Amino acid sequence: MMMTTKERQAVYKAIHQRRDVRGQFKPDPIPDEVLSRILNAAHHAPSVGFMQPWDFIVVDDPQLKQQIKTGFEMAHREAEQLFEGSRREIYSSLKLEGIVEAPIGICVTCDRSRTGPVVIGRTANPEMDLYSAVCAVQNLWLAARAENIGVGWVSIIHHDELRKALQIPEHIMPIAYLCIGYVTFFHERPELESVGWLPRLELDAVLHHNGW
Amino acid sequence: MMMTTKERQAVYKAIHQRRDVRGQFKPDPIPDEVLSRILNAAHHAPSVGFMQPWDFIVVDDPQLKQQIKTGFEMAHREAEQLFEGSRREIYSSLKLEGIVEAPIGICVTCDRSRTGPVVIGRTANPEMDLYSAVCAVQNLWLAARAENIGVGWVSIIHHDELRKALQIPEHIMPIAYLCIGYVTFFHERPELESVGWLPRLELDAVLHHNGW
Repeated sequence: MMMTTKERQAVYKAIHQRRDVRGQFKPDPIPDEVLSRILNAAHHAPSVGFMQPWDFIVVDDPQLKQQIKTGFEMAHREAEQLFEGSRREIYSSLKLEGIVEAPIGICVTCDRSRTGPVVIGRTANPEMDLYSAVCAVQNLWLAARAENIGVGWVSIIHHDELRKALQIPEHIMPIAYLCIGYVTFFHERPELESVGWLPRLELDAVLHHNGW
Repeated sequence: MMMTTKERQAVYKAIHQRRDVRGQFKPDPIPDEVLSRILNAAHHAPSVGFMQPWDFIVVDDPQLKQQIKTGFEMAHREAEQLFEGSRREIYSSLKLEGIVEAPIGICVTCDRSRTGPVVIGRTANPEMDLYSAVCAVQNLWLAARAENIGVGWVSIIHHDELRKALQIPEHIMPIAYLCIGYVTFFHERPELESVGWLPRLELDAVLHHNGW
């Protein structure tokens, strides 16, 4: 089915107005049918050899969220030590997650053994199943934006802490912990761009033609 | 800016009607402004610490495409040996890429050193920059679908072959080689589902609540 001009513009709107949300979560619950649509979008991501290696753990238990927040704080304190001088001051001043405020969290994982050891398309590049799960994350993120729901990816946490909190089996690989909820507003630009941490690169600077 | 119901539906349409295209490419050239919109969508993916670690190598040289196709064939023959009996027959009968037919290819890469050794959000999880580049691939894929353009991810090729063909520096990590072009049609369902290779999982089968 052809996409119309208006539909195309809607897709670009979601892509360009998607943000990594840390500080604007509202406590309003996400209706079940909305959450289902978002998860179903994630489940329709491309996957190598159609293995659909992802699982989605929906977290709304306040105690679990607190435990995950503690895991973030641990990794955050370690990270702080890696930045020097004024960079450390800026780093420490940033709000980097909304684990407790967001009404739900979703942990996206990858089951690398799901369809057996040999997977079409994973033979030369074993990381392809992990990448499939990341595609599911990005589908989820854009679907959420289309629902006017914010998503924040918490990467400052060790996998072992997620495993412990969410009883994730040893053979399952955590890919992302996402904070999800309605927001008071979406920032116009990425926050790290606004605070001057790094500039947006020109597209031309990352484009090559027929070779690097 | 709020997304309307119609805009939300357009995003879901792109997500659900996106396909991995191998066999339906038309030779029609992609207008520059269309390609720019697609690449710009990729460039607006989320990136860890706003490092924007991706580069995009656009390939339209027929000789280069042929060289990449030869790389595919090498990895494809290796892969064939890994499937047994009737699975091998099915595997060998599948069309798995459209490298030569697609008017352009795009290689998406990751520069892990782009903004220095310490990156916000990559401290506990060093793979986050690779995942950012994968998010760019998925943005590109959905933007292309919104433009009624097909994309196929060729993962059956060794990185070294891509490096050689496209002169990719040693410190740059290839993430994806994508075949891109207008199509005669989009399949209704993933081809590996249609041929009975693997079934679509029920969403409920991959959902968990407050723990695995």
